[in-house]
Amino acid sequence: MSKDIHSVGVIGLGAMGMGVAQSLLRGGFEVHAFDIRREAVDKVAAAGGYAADSPAVLAKKVDAVVVLVINADQTETVLFGENGAAANLAPGSVVIASATVSPEFARSLGKRLAGMGLLMIDGPVSGGAAKAASGEMTIMASGAPEGFAKCEGVLKAIAGKVYRLGDEPGPGSVVKMVNQLLAGVHIAAAGEAMALAIRCGADPDQTYEVIANSAGSSWMFQNRVPHILAGDYTPLSAVNIFVKDLGIVLDYAKKSVFPLPLASTAHQMFLQASAEGHGGEDDSAVVKIFPGIVLPAGKRT
Amino acid sequence: MSKDIHSVGVIGLGAMGMGVAQSLLRGGFEVHAFDIRREAVDKVAAAGGYAADSPAVLAKKVDAVVVLVINADQTETVLFGENGAAANLAPGSVVIASATVSPEFARSLGKRLAGMGLLMIDGPVSGGAAKAASGEMTIMASGAPEGFAKCEGVLKAIAGKVYRLGDEPGPGSVVKMVNQLLAGVHIAAAGEAMALAIRCGADPDQTYEVIANSAGSSWMFQNRVPHILAGDYTPLSAVNIFVKDLGIVLDYAKKSVFPLPLASTAHQMFLQASAEGHGGEDDSAVVKIFPGIVLPAGKRT
Repeated sequence: MSKDIHSVGVIGLGAMGMGVAQSLLRGGFEVHAFDIRREAVDKVAAAGGYAADSPAVLAKKVDAVVVLVINADQTETVLFGENGAAANLAPGSVVIASATVSPEFARSLGKRLAGMGLLMIDGPVSGGAAKAASGEMTIMASGAPEGFAKCEGVLKAIAGKVYRLGDEPGPGSVVKMVNQLLAGVHIAAAGEAMALAIRCGADPDQTYEVIANSAGSSWMFQNRVPHILAGDYTPLSAVNIFVKDLGIVLDYAKKSVFPLPLASTAHQMFLQASAEGHGGEDDSAVVKIFPGIVLPAGKRT
Repeated sequence: MSKDIHSVGVIGLGAMGMGVAQSLLRGGFEVHAFDIRREAVDKVAAAGGYAADSPAVLAKKVDAVVVLVINADQTETVLFGENGAAANLAPGSVVIASATVSPEFARSLGKRLAGMGLLMIDGPVSGGAAKAASGEMTIMASGAPEGFAKCEGVLKAIAGKVYRLGDEPGPGSVVKMVNQLLAGVHIAAAGEAMALAIRCGADPDQTYEVIANSAGSSWMFQNRVPHILAGDYTPLSAVNIFVKDLGIVLDYAKKSVFPLPLASTAHQMFLQASAEGHGGEDDSAVVKIFPGIVLPAGKRT
């Protein structure tokens, strides 16, 4: 295992970023962390990492930085904004850009960083908070082989599986976008199917068991329908995440003049759920847009 | 294993019905078979079964009949039409109605058969031709416990899993309908996702491998996308089957004044594929409605 890189920054300490920071600490790396929420930074410091006051301060101390903020705008800000990281990284450092962004943003980012002598890995992630915490998430990655070589140890520490999808930024974000299209459509379809089953008087638990073992199943059906059955909409991933991610997919397709009938329908469903006040709930709350049915009640403790 | 029933009829010898007939023969049952295609009937006879010239003739020789025709209209015809089976079955015989039909048709059929002293199992099937041939298909079943008791051996011979969903016809067809909704949406979504990946210049094989192992996967994605990658649209299940099945779901929901945004969008996609001349091709040919992309070519032999 290559350990050329010893010191790694993590910018963005949400569910995924916090897991990455923990996995890097477990892997023996020196971890510098930044987030606008000070309590998240303190948590990493308490676990043996170092708190940074800004992306710029962080950048001066690391050889690679994992950017796990929410979207392209935040990626732009933490890299190029006031006290941004990019201008403060040493030449030859690696930026692993892991937010879900459009492929064109990823390509453009790669060119700008290359112009500053930096290497970029277009590396969106998948797998959820639990896999991030255990260092087993999936990375859909593309970028310069030199960047991958330098980050071999880093990637091993944070990911169970790294798909190498090309030698420059772009393909990583394309495949992530396609994955998010399917994930969003499948969650909305799971809601639609369970709503219909309940409308028809079928037993929701029985329906779930049959379909989870039949040709109608999906990873998301198996993962999200139990939230509906439990009446528990505590957000593991929120409705508004798919308002955003399907929005990215649709914006990109629109620029390419490419129709996406199912993604646009699913996006409308998440928008409706958000407009009805469920934007901060678990994404399975998209089932709440279906009228005239009684969903399983949450268990009281 | 109960073997009270010794002689079983199979009406409808398509991919699923032929597999059921073969499984029953392997299970030691006396099998009487009817289909409008004489060559299919002859195939069962050659394997040790008996050819019937009509559902009526068949009905006089069996204690249970599995109806595996295409839809409600054909079910109606083979049971109640000219030379139909129902009037010729002995009282107490069991009709296993396995076509995909609306729940209201299943309920109504159960009442009509009960009025003739016959037992009905509302038993739509899932699993595809290969599972039918090996006696391992899934049955989503509801009906009178007496019918299940009589058919215990029959069901064991033809199904790997029998879900008992209620004591009268209806719930079996509800769950099958919900399964078909998801299956149809997932196939159309798989097409949409692969089309977008190709439009974005991603490698189709790599995209498939990543997504099949990620949160965007579905049973149908894993099963159907290989057809697209191979450029092989030989129909295992045709586009027109989902024109029909999603049509059943949508008609039923419309009568219940219940919106199904994704099912209706997917139905439009299958209708478009059919209108473009692909109705008889494999249902994965729904990917062909996306313009301006070059799909993987079929391998020449």
